[in-house]
Amino acid sequence: MNNVAIIGTGQTKFSKEEANVEKLLFESSNECIQSVSNCSSKDIDGVLVSTNNNSKYMGAILSEFLDIQPRIAHSIEHLCSSGTNAIISAYSYISSGLADVVLVSGVDSTTNPGQILEWDRSRGNFEHPIYWASMLTKAHKRKFQTSEEELAIVSAKNHKHAMDNPHAYSNEPKTITEIMNSKQITKDLRIMDCSRSCSGSSSVLLASEKSATEFSDSPIWISGIGQKTTSASFTKNDLDEIKSTHVAADSAYKMANILPNDIDVAEVHDAFSVCELMAISELGITSGEKSGEFVRNLFNTEDRMINPRGGLIGAGHPLGATGISQTIEITNQLQGKSEKRQINNAKIGLIHNMSAAGTSSSVMVMKN
Amino acid sequence: MNNVAIIGTGQTKFSKEEANVEKLLFESSNECIQSVSNCSSKDIDGVLVSTNNNSKYMGAILSEFLDIQPRIAHSIEHLCSSGTNAIISAYSYISSGLADVVLVSGVDSTTNPGQILEWDRSRGNFEHPIYWASMLTKAHKRKFQTSEEELAIVSAKNHKHAMDNPHAYSNEPKTITEIMNSKQITKDLRIMDCSRSCSGSSSVLLASEKSATEFSDSPIWISGIGQKTTSASFTKNDLDEIKSTHVAADSAYKMANILPNDIDVAEVHDAFSVCELMAISELGITSGEKSGEFVRNLFNTEDRMINPRGGLIGAGHPLGATGISQTIEITNQLQGKSEKRQINNAKIGLIHNMSAAGTSSSVMVMKN
Repeated sequence: MNNVAIIGTGQTKFSKEEANVEKLLFESSNECIQSVSNCSSKDIDGVLVSTNNNSKYMGAILSEFLDIQPRIAHSIEHLCSSGTNAIISAYSYISSGLADVVLVSGVDSTTNPGQILEWDRSRGNFEHPIYWASMLTKAHKRKFQTSEEELAIVSAKNHKHAMDNPHAYSNEPKTITEIMNSKQITKDLRIMDCSRSCSGSSSVLLASEKSATEFSDSPIWISGIGQKTTSASFTKNDLDEIKSTHVAADSAYKMANILPNDIDVAEVHDAFSVCELMAISELGITSGEKSGEFVRNLFNTEDRMINPRGGLIGAGHPLGATGISQTIEITNQLQGKSEKRQINNAKIGLIHNMSAAGTSSSVMVMKN
Repeated sequence: MNNVAIIGTGQTKFSKEEANVEKLLFESSNECIQSVSNCSSKDIDGVLVSTNNNSKYMGAILSEFLDIQPRIAHSIEHLCSSGTNAIISAYSYISSGLADVVLVSGVDSTTNPGQILEWDRSRGNFEHPIYWASMLTKAHKRKFQTSEEELAIVSAKNHKHAMDNPHAYSNEPKTITEIMNSKQITKDLRIMDCSRSCSGSSSVLLASEKSATEFSDSPIWISGIGQKTTSASFTKNDLDEIKSTHVAADSAYKMANILPNDIDVAEVHDAFSVCELMAISELGITSGEKSGEFVRNLFNTEDRMINPRGGLIGAGHPLGATGISQTIEITNQLQGKSEKRQINNAKIGLIHNMSAAGTSSSVMVMKN
């Protein structure tokens, strides 16, 4: 089995403006290829596009734009976790020897069709994700006495982090009070607890050990992978846990031979405030009981360990691009290139992404 | 690198009736899992759905239907060659050690959105595939003096083969004269030169060497893989060749360590009559000049070597399912289970699939 590294990254600004997905894809992937000196389109033998967009043949379209004639090209869709799924697929092509250098580009636009969960009949008319987020929030409050303020801190922290991320959707700080007074959209959810669907694209270049060391001075290695889908229907899951994250994390830690407290920096899927609290406990970084306190402490000490780029709440959530932007953040952190938001001496990073009320999760551990 | 085999197969009948894609997926995948004694849903750790359908999260939906909680789940789209791309992706997950047993299920319905090639501005208003097929046909006639009769023989042969395929869309023989007198839809194309979009689903189960030998008495090994995308736009290619097929075949032969004349049976992508003639020459089975004569000889001697299940023209073309049905045919042939359409003593089989005027191709070599 070949080792696989991230060697290049590129991304557009995330924006609320509706945009042409092909144009966004080209922008991020072109920047990604340019980021790797000596690597040209001829060296790339796989192009995977991660998106919820209904356009067809996007792998071939992007390849033609970039003057790449790859072996492997296609689109991958798995709602919010499409991006990490595509990166893990690229890993498997390289690790198995079918490809050597693979471009993974994710994109979605503000009006992408992955937002409304039409397939899940168990939701009745409650097709929008705010309904499951509301139920998870209520369950978390009941089980762990989580306060409205602790939930608001997640959002305040991530909006604050986003201020130092030039690609983020959000560009102004939000106070805890502002968040707690923002528009109530269900009994347990306020508008500022929610990430926003937006337009954006991000791309990474993956390479085999041989090519990674040839093309890059600072390859970042994918050392652990875990994935799990427990169901498609929200109501098949318990409301107070995200089992898919727990199982995926266990696999990733085992493969990377690390423990949760070895993690220096993590990007976790905070589609809603409660998701960050649930994710950090399912990942073993803290416990459910202490998750609110854990995040409060990060906020008070200005520790950027969790979601340094601003998470989905601060950076925005263009579905197919999200997992790839999370991976770019961890790559930059482990390369020491995160400027104002750099975590000191980051050696081990984690990416956690999930879909549809946590019915599916993917976790990657990365090392420098 | 682990060896990977096909150990199970299942498919629905292909039909012109519009159908629910989830229902079709369940039918073929359930039959596929049932075809492997001792293998249960608990043993399956990947579910890949190949489709052009716009529904989201189909990997998770199918998993829930089948009571599978896989590690890996998502949808893959690359127009007509989605199915073989998904099989090769499953191969890479298993070969890299990320999965052990993977279900690949393809589906599309009569009105699937992959038929009209809206993205290719170089086509102008000629978005329907019949226009490129017409241009390829004209070029083949000019370069190789291919006759109308030779083109009609491709269709007559494949309709004839389909008579012995209970899953095929076509269920009546067509004479050469009937085909040559069928409705002219462009100057160089008649309606019976065309495969038909239809509803259908097919599924295969792939396994590592360890699990394949545990679960199956007759695993069929994927011994060669080649893929190539040359462009997305039709007009970037020469009209008298399918370069992507040539390149993909060379890679697959090299990996499998075989020569074209080692092939006992092949499924090739005959979306239109001319495609079969072009494919068999690009694959090195014959030359462009002799391709018409080669097919005439097969027809006259009742040799089923090329497209024994009836190809796309005879069996129908539910886009996302096509490559998987091709793989099922070769699997059955190498297992000696093809009944009336069995090729004697078939040891080495080939699958050739392609998308959008041959701008993308995939080739697999299989051995028993």
